Amino acid sequence: MTSVLPSRTEAGAPVAFTDRHIGIGADAQARMLEVVGYDSVEALVETAVPASIHVRPRETSDIPVAATEAEALAELRELATANRSARPLIGLGYYDTFTPSVIARNVLENPSWYTAYTPYQPEISQGRLEALINFQTMVTDLTGLATANASMLDESTAVVEGMLVARRASKAKTDVFLVDIDALPQTKALLHHRAAAVGIRIVETSFAGELPEAFGAFVQYPGATGRIWDFSAVAEAVHAGGGLVVAAADLLALTLLRSPGALGADVAVGTTQRFGVPLGFGGPHAGYMAVRAGLERQLPGRLVGVSQDAVGAPAYRLSLQTREQHIRREKATSNICTAQVLLAVMAAMYAVYHGPDGLRAIATRVAQKADVLASALRSYDLTLVSDAFFDTVRVHVPGRAQDVIDRARERGYQLLWVDDATVGVSVDETTTDADIAAVLDAFGLVAGELPEGEALRGVADALHRDDEYLTHPVFHAHRSETAMMRYLKTLADRDYALDRGMIPLGSCTMKLNAATEMAAVSWPEFSRVHPFAPEADVRGYLEMIEQLERWLAEVTGYDAVSLQPNAGSQGELAGLLAIRGYHLANGDTARTVCLIPSSAHGTNAASAILAGMKVVVVACDEAGNVDLGDLRAKIAQHAAELSALMITYPSTHGVYEHDVLEITQAVHDAGGQVYVDGANLNALLGFARFGDLGGDVSHLNLHKTFAIPHGGGGPGVGPVAAKAHLAPFLPSHPFSQRAEHAGGVFDGGPVSAAPHGSAGILPISWAYVRMMGAEGLRQATAAAVLSANYIAARLREHYPVLYAGEGGLVAHECILDLRPLKEQTGVTVDDVAKRLIDYGFHAPTMSFPVAGTLMVEPTESEDLAELDRFVDAMIAIKQEAVAVAAGQWPADDNPLVNAPHTAETVVVGEWEHPYSRETAVYPVRSLIRGKYWPPVRRIDQAYGDRNLVCSCPPPEAFA
Amino acid sequence: MTSVLPSRTEAGAPVAFTDRHIGIGADAQARMLEVVGYDSVEALVETAVPASIHVRPRETSDIPVAATEAEALAELRELATANRSARPLIGLGYYDTFTPSVIARNVLENPSWYTAYTPYQPEISQGRLEALINFQTMVTDLTGLATANASMLDESTAVVEGMLVARRASKAKTDVFLVDIDALPQTKALLHHRAAAVGIRIVETSFAGELPEAFGAFVQYPGATGRIWDFSAVAEAVHAGGGLVVAAADLLALTLLRSPGALGADVAVGTTQRFGVPLGFGGPHAGYMAVRAGLERQLPGRLVGVSQDAVGAPAYRLSLQTREQHIRREKATSNICTAQVLLAVMAAMYAVYHGPDGLRAIATRVAQKADVLASALRSYDLTLVSDAFFDTVRVHVPGRAQDVIDRARERGYQLLWVDDATVGVSVDETTTDADIAAVLDAFGLVAGELPEGEALRGVADALHRDDEYLTHPVFHAHRSETAMMRYLKTLADRDYALDRGMIPLGSCTMKLNAATEMAAVSWPEFSRVHPFAPEADVRGYLEMIEQLERWLAEVTGYDAVSLQPNAGSQGELAGLLAIRGYHLANGDTARTVCLIPSSAHGTNAASAILAGMKVVVVACDEAGNVDLGDLRAKIAQHAAELSALMITYPSTHGVYEHDVLEITQAVHDAGGQVYVDGANLNALLGFARFGDLGGDVSHLNLHKTFAIPHGGGGPGVGPVAAKAHLAPFLPSHPFSQRAEHAGGVFDGGPVSAAPHGSAGILPISWAYVRMMGAEGLRQATAAAVLSANYIAARLREHYPVLYAGEGGLVAHECILDLRPLKEQTGVTVDDVAKRLIDYGFHAPTMSFPVAGTLMVEPTESEDLAELDRFVDAMIAIKQEAVAVAAGQWPADDNPLVNAPHTAETVVVGEWEHPYSRETAVYPVRSLIRGKYWPPVRRIDQAYGDRNLVCSCPPPEAFA
Repeated sequence: MTSVLPSRTEAGAPVAFTDRHIGIGADAQARMLEVVGYDSVEALVETAVPASIHVRPRETSDIPVAATEAEALAELRELATANRSARPLIGLGYYDTFTPSVIARNVLENPSWYTAYTPYQPEISQGRLEALINFQTMVTDLTGLATANASMLDESTAVVEGMLVARRASKAKTDVFLVDIDALPQTKALLHHRAAAVGIRIVETSFAGELPEAFGAFVQYPGATGRIWDFSAVAEAVHAGGGLVVAAADLLALTLLRSPGALGADVAVGTTQRFGVPLGFGGPHAGYMAVRAGLERQLPGRLVGVSQDAVGAPAYRLSLQTREQHIRREKATSNICTAQVLLAVMAAMYAVYHGPDGLRAIATRVAQKADVLASALRSYDLTLVSDAFFDTVRVHVPGRAQDVIDRARERGYQLLWVDDATVGVSVDETTTDADIAAVLDAFGLVAGELPEGEALRGVADALHRDDEYLTHPVFHAHRSETAMMRYLKTLADRDYALDRGMIPLGSCTMKLNAATEMAAVSWPEFSRVHPFAPEADVRGYLEMIEQLERWLAEVTGYDAVSLQPNAGSQGELAGLLAIRGYHLANGDTARTVCLIPSSAHGTNAASAILAGMKVVVVACDEAGNVDLGDLRAKIAQHAAELSALMITYPSTHGVYEHDVLEITQAVHDAGGQVYVDGANLNALLGFARFGDLGGDVSHLNLHKTFAIPHGGGGPGVGPVAAKAHLAPFLPSHPFSQRAEHAGGVFDGGPVSAAPHGSAGILPISWAYVRMMGAEGLRQATAAAVLSANYIAARLREHYPVLYAGEGGLVAHECILDLRPLKEQTGVTVDDVAKRLIDYGFHAPTMSFPVAGTLMVEPTESEDLAELDRFVDAMIAIKQEAVAVAAGQWPADDNPLVNAPHTAETVVVGEWEHPYSRETAVYPVRSLIRGKYWPPVRRIDQAYGDRNLVCSCPPPEAFA
Repeated sequence: MTSVLPSRTEAGAPVAFTDRHIGIGADAQARMLEVVGYDSVEALVETAVPASIHVRPRETSDIPVAATEAEALAELRELATANRSARPLIGLGYYDTFTPSVIARNVLENPSWYTAYTPYQPEISQGRLEALINFQTMVTDLTGLATANASMLDESTAVVEGMLVARRASKAKTDVFLVDIDALPQTKALLHHRAAAVGIRIVETSFAGELPEAFGAFVQYPGATGRIWDFSAVAEAVHAGGGLVVAAADLLALTLLRSPGALGADVAVGTTQRFGVPLGFGGPHAGYMAVRAGLERQLPGRLVGVSQDAVGAPAYRLSLQTREQHIRREKATSNICTAQVLLAVMAAMYAVYHGPDGLRAIATRVAQKADVLASALRSYDLTLVSDAFFDTVRVHVPGRAQDVIDRARERGYQLLWVDDATVGVSVDETTTDADIAAVLDAFGLVAGELPEGEALRGVADALHRDDEYLTHPVFHAHRSETAMMRYLKTLADRDYALDRGMIPLGSCTMKLNAATEMAAVSWPEFSRVHPFAPEADVRGYLEMIEQLERWLAEVTGYDAVSLQPNAGSQGELAGLLAIRGYHLANGDTARTVCLIPSSAHGTNAASAILAGMKVVVVACDEAGNVDLGDLRAKIAQHAAELSALMITYPSTHGVYEHDVLEITQAVHDAGGQVYVDGANLNALLGFARFGDLGGDVSHLNLHKTFAIPHGGGGPGVGPVAAKAHLAPFLPSHPFSQRAEHAGGVFDGGPVSAAPHGSAGILPISWAYVRMMGAEGLRQATAAAVLSANYIAARLREHYPVLYAGEGGLVAHECILDLRPLKEQTGVTVDDVAKRLIDYGFHAPTMSFPVAGTLMVEPTESEDLAELDRFVDAMIAIKQEAVAVAAGQWPADDNPLVNAPHTAETVVVGEWEHPYSRETAVYPVRSLIRGKYWPPVRRIDQAYGDRNLVCSCPPPEAFA
C-alpha cells in the first residue's frame, strides 16, 4: 500500500485538485500521526477499518484518472454543449424564469450562502432565518393561509405530505383520498406510489356530481390543462364529510387569482421554482406548504419562527421541530429532514426584489401572452381545452400533435405532447412576442400583428384577486439593485458558513464545496433545461448522469443507482420501497418488519413507516455496536415478517463495527434485506464498499460525501443504490428520457417530481469525482479519518471520547462526552456549543446520537491550523468550566452560561459580570484581528414554541 | 419635456433595468423635490444646466431602446458566440492561464472586492492593502529588487514609465535611450510614440559592440523571440556611462531564471497577466514595476507601505503618494493616477495559492512543453531562432509561415506570424501534449510519442535561478481551497465597499456595478481571447467595440472614439497627443502651451507635460468658474504658442459654468484646441454634449460614468473621443484587427499595450448603455443631480455648500466647506472623515478641489434611505463637533479625534474617555443590528513615510 495522503513536496503537485480539496499535506500529516501514535496513515486506517471488509483491488475502473480543474471544466463545457438550447414551453409545474443577476451572483454563487448549514444554531443563522421567514410570509400571503413552512422538496412530494396531513387531521373514517383528474401527471404517479405503501386509496375524480366519502381531496389550481375553476363548492362538500382540501397552486398565478385559502383550501402546496429559481432539468427547487389556522402543528419539515434572545431582543429560530429525531421515532409522520433553503432564499428574494407590484406585473404579462396566443389560435378556428387559463393553453389538433411539436422543435421550442390530438403550450416570464409568433408558425399559422392581450380574459370575475398581499416593508424596501445587494450582504454577514471557519458537524460532513465544482450549475446549458425536455435535447445531461451513476455504483459496490431522490430521506424511502416491492413481487406480503438499531438516525424509522413497515428496535452494546445477540433474538421473533434491517456504517457512533459481515449474514439467512444508510460513507470510500458488506440497498448523500453544498439547509441529493435483484423496484418516472428508467429496468414508481431529481446540481458531484479520481476519494477518506482521530487524541484527556473501535480508534468523527463535565461543573453541552460561537466556531452536532455529547466531524478539508484552533478552543472552554466549578465565577453568571456574547453586550450599558469584556468576546487574542460577531444572544427556544409567530415581524419589533 | 425620472407605479415597470440602477423612484423623488424646493425634476435640471447648452433633440439614434437584463444577456451571448474559441499560442506578453476558480469566484466575481474604491481611506481598506503588499512582495522577490509598487497599467506603459524613471535618476547628459531590438513590438511602438513627445531619442540596438552614451537602456528578458541571454555585461556598461537599466521580465520565467536584479537591472517591469488573470482580448491586467534600493521615491503610481495606527498596531496604507494632485502639478513626472488593483489582487492570490513550489512546478511544466516542441521540430531538421528559451520557440519555415499558421488555425490554434519565413509558438500553463502534437501537425510533422522535456535545456547554467523567493508565510499558509477561500473572506471583511453602503466620493461616481453588467466578463468567449488574435476569431468583440464607440460618440457629440486608453489618465494623454499631432501636421510647431484652470484635477497638468506641453494656469473666480478675463489675458499672452485649453465640465467644483461657450470660442478664435475632461460626465449625459460645448477632444471614464467597477483602485477605461479633424491623431496600434485603427484612419500611435486596451471589461459598459438606453442615461443624470442637490439642501444649514450655479443649484456633487467648523470647534476634515467610518460610511473626497472641504457625490444609484442616513450622520457629527467646542469633551479626547474606533478599543482594557463606549461605536442605534467594524485605528501617515516598508511584515508584527 503506497501513501494514501498526498504529498505537496513533489514538482507539479500543487495543481492537483486533490491537494486543494484535502486540507492536510504531508507535513501536517506527519505531525498529526505523531499525536495519534501511528507511524503512517496506512497503519492507522488499516487498524481502524476491519481487515475483513477491506476493499479488493479492482483491475478495471470506470472512474477515470483524476482531472485537473481546467480539464474538468473543459469536459463540463463539452457536456453542456451536448444539451440543446431550446425554449421550453412544456409547463407542468416547470417554467423558464429570469433569475435576477443580483440574486444569482450574491446568493447562488456566494459561499456565504451556499456553504452554510441547516440553522440548528440559530444565533449564528439569523440571516438565512430572516430570508426564510420572508419566504414563509410570501407563501402565506399569496396562498391566503395562516402558516407556511420553510419549504418542501418539490411540489409533488409536497402534495403527498399534504395528503398525509389531511389523513392525520381528518376525522373522516375512510382511507379514500380524492385526486383531481387535472392534477399534474407526475404528481398523480407519486400519489399512487406513495399512497399504496401506507394504505391510502386514491380515487381520481373530476369533482363533478356526488363525491365519495374521503379524508381529503386534492385540487390542482390552475389544473394541468391550464384550466381555472372555482373549487369552493367542492371544498364545502369535502369539509362537510370531515375531510380536508389540499390545493396545489401556482404562486405566480396567485398574484392575480383568488387565493386557495379564500376558496376553502385547508392546505396549499406547490413549487416556487418560477420565482427566479433555474429549471435545472428538474431541480433543486423549493416546494412550499401552507396550512390554515389550527393545522400549524401538523406541518412537516422546517418552520421558522420568531422568538427572543436572552435579553429580550427578537430572534429567529426553527420552531416546532417535528424533525424525526426530536420526537418519538416510532410515531414519525414525515421523514423530511431538511428543506430547500438555498432555493427558498432565492424565491423569497425574487419576491422581495419585485415586490407585489412587480410580481403582479410579471404575472399580467404572462397571462397576456397566453391570451394573445389563445386568441390567435381561435382566430384560425382551433379549439382549446379550456378558455379559462392563466399561462397554459391546450389546443385540439386532431392527428397533428406530433407534427406541431416537431415543427416547434425545429424552430427552437419545446411544446407538450398530450395525446395525438392535443398540444400544450405554457408561457412564462421570458416569453416574447417573437416566441408567440414562432409557436403560431409551428401550428402552421401566420402571426400577423400581435395585440396586447388581456390577462385572465376567460376567468370568472369572482376568481380575480382583489385583496392585498406582501404588504410587509421588506417587500418594498429593496427595489434598486444596490439596495438588494446590500440587503443580501447584511443577511450573509449575520451568518456563519464554511467561508468563515470549520463546521465540525458529526454526521453532516461539511467538506469543501469547490468553486470549480459549483461553476457549471450557473451555466444556462444546464440551468435552463426543462425536466421533461425531449431526449435529443438533453444528451449532455444524460451522459453526465449515466457516468455519475456508474461511478457511484463502483465506489459503493452496487449494481444500479438512481439519482432521482432529491434528499437523503427520499433516497432512504426509495430504498425501503424497493425492498417492499421486492418482497411483494416474491409473494412475501407478510414481510413488513424493519429492524433498526437504537443508535440509528431518526429518519430511518420515519422512512420505514412511510414505506409501510413496522419498526422494531434492536439494542446496541456499550461500544455503540449492534448487539448481535439482540439482533438474532429479534430476527427469530419476527422471522416470517422480517423485511429489512437498516444499519449505518460506520455506525452513528462513529465506529467501524467489526461484526458487520455477521450482522448482514444473519439478516440474509432469515430472508431479510439489508439497508445500509450512507450517511457515514465519508469514512469508507476507497477502503470498503456497502455492497461488499452485505448491503442490498443504500442511499448516499451527495451533499455530504460528494461535495454538494448544504445550502444553509438544502438542497440535498440522496441517490439510491442497490444490488441487481432490487433494480426493478428502484425509482422510475413517467417522463424519464431513458426508457430503462421509465419502467424498462427501474419500475418502482417515482419518489420525486422530476425524473432525475435535483439534476441541476449533479455537475457538482460529477466534478468532484472527476477531479479526485478513485485514488483521491480514497485519500480523502484517509485524511478525514486521520483528522477525526487527531482531534480525539488531543481532546481525550479533556473530554472522554465515547465509543472507539480497534486500537481505540474512531472513524471519521468522534463523540465527546460532556456529561462528566456537567456533573463536575454544571456547564452543559449547550453552554459549550454557544461558547464556541464566542471563539469563532460553529458547534459540533449536539446531543446526537447520545444526549449530553458533542459529535465532531472535521472532514478532510480542514487544515491543521484550523483543527488546532478548534482543539485549543475546546481546551480553553474546559478550563473556563473548571473555573466555574472552582467558584471563580458563579454558576449563573460566567462566560459559558452567558454565551454567545454580542458586540452590543460589551458596548452598551454597564458591565456587571464577574469576568471582563475581553474574556467575553476575545477569549483568544487572535480573534482581535478578525472576529465573527453573533447578531443575537442565546435564543429562548421555549418562548418561541409557546408564542408561535412564523411571518415577518413588524419593523418596530427591532427598534 | 416628460418626466425624466422613472415611475415604478405602472404595470411592468419593476423589471426595467433603469429602475434597478436608479435608486430613487417616483415617491422618493417627490419628497426630495420638496426639500430642494422645485416642483419637478425637469424644472430643477433645466435650471441647473444652462439653457444655452441643452442638447438638441435627435431624430435618429444609434442607441437602441433599452433592453431588459435578460435581453442584454442574450445579446451578449450572441456576441460571445461570434468570437471563435481557439487556443492562443501567440505570446508577445499575453498567455492563456488558468484562473483558480476560488479566486475567480471570490475576487473577480465578488462585489466586496470589485466595488471597492482606491484605498485612500486606509483604515477601511486593510484587506486589499494586504493583498497589494502581497503583490509587491511577490514582485520584489521574483525580480530580485528592493521595492515594487502596487501595479502598473500594462507592461508597455510600464516600460515607458521605466524610461522616465531612468531619465530622472540618471546623471548622463543625453537624451538617448537604448531599446532592445528584441523588445515586444507593441512596447517599441509605445516607446517611440511617447519618447517623441518628451524629447527622448530612442536607439534600437542588439547590444553587440560599443554602446552609445545613454541615460538608460531597456532589455526584454526573455526577448520577444523567446531568447534568453545574460545582460549583466550590458548593465555594467550602461551603469558605467551613468545610465540605468530597465528590464522587462516575465514573472513566471523568473521562478526558474536568475532575477533581473541579480543581473544588474535598476528597474524591472512587466505584466502579471499570466498569474491567473484572464487574457480578456488585451486587458485589464496588472503591470508591475520594481526598483533597486535608492530609487523608491522615483516609483510612479501607487505604493503600499506599512505604518502604524493610533495605538501602534501595524497598519497598511498608501505610501509616498506621488499622485499628481498631491505634488506641485507643474513638476509632475507621471500622470498615472491609479493602478490595476483588482487584477493585482488576483495575481498576488495566484502566487499565494500556488506558493513558490507551485509556481516553479508550473514554470517547469511550461518550459518542458516548449522543449518538447523544440526538440520535435529540430528532429525534423527545422531550425530555431534561438535555442535558449523559456516558453517561446521561433521557427524558420522559409516561405511557409502563412501556410503553417493557416493549418494551425484550422486545428484550433493561433500562432504568431513573424515574417514569411518565421513562425512563433509560445506555450503556457494550459498547454497539453495534445496541443503540442496539433502544432507539430500544423507544421506538417508527425508528433509520435512525446518525451517529458527538459526545462531551460539551452539556457546557460549561470542563468538558472538558485536563490529562494516567496519565503514569507503568506505564500505557504493557504494551500487548500478552504484556506484560500477563508483568507479572501477575511480580507474582504476588513474592507468597506459598495456592498456595505454608499461611497459618496466627489469626482469618482461610485454608482451601481450591476451583476448583469459584470456577467460576461467571466465568460471564456470573452476572457480567453488573445489581443493579437486574427480578425476572423474576434468578430464578436469587434462588433461590441464598434457599437460602444458609436454610442459613446453619440452621447458626447463627437465623431470618433478610441477605446484603447486603459485609464482616464491615458485617455487624457491620448487626447493631448492628438492635439499635439494636429498642430504639428499643420506646421504649428510652436503651439505647446496648455492652459489649465486652477481648479483642474492634477492629472490634467501631468498629462500635458507628458504630451510635451507647457502648463499655464488660468485663474478661477469666487464661484469656482474659469475667470474669463484671465483666460483672455492668458490667450493674448501666449497667442502664437497656444495649443490647448483643458477644462472640466461641469467644473471640478461641481458647477455648470454658464460661460462655457464663450470660453471655448475664445480658445478656438486664437487657434487653440479645447480639451474637455470627462470626469464629471455623469452630470451631463442626456442633457448636454461635450462636442456641442465646443470641445475638440475629451476622455471619458467608463469606470465612473459607464458602470465599470473601481475594483478597489483599478481597472479603469478612459476612451478618448474627438471631432473628425483630430481622428487621424487618435491612438492606433500595429496589431489592431481593424485596418482603420492600424493607421488607416487613426494614426496617432499606441498609448496602451493592447489595441483595444482593457477590452475584457468593455462588456460592462456595453451592457450598461444597452440596458439604460438613451432615455435611461438621461434619467440617471437627472437622478444624480437631484440627489446631490438634495444633500446640499439638507446639509447647507450645517455645513456651507461651496460654489453653486443658477438658483443656488449644484450639479452632481457638492462641496461641503468644513473650514468654518474647524475654526469654531477645532475639528478637522480628517476627523469628520474618520468619524464617518464609525457611522458606517466611506468618507467623501477630502480636500479636493479645495483644502478643508468634503466633496460629496451620491450618484443616481443610492436610494433615499441611504441618502438620509448619510445626511443624518453628517448632522450628528456636526453636533458632536459643537459639543467639543462647548467644552463637553476635551479637544484632544473626543469621539471625533479618536475616530475611527475599533471593536478592540471598546473591549480591551479600561475605558478612559469622557464619552461612552456606545457613543464611540454606536453613535446611531441602528448600527447595533449591523455594523462595519474598522480593523485598525487612525493611521499615522507621517510614520509610514518616514519608515518605508513595502513588503509583507513578519507575522510577529501582529502578535
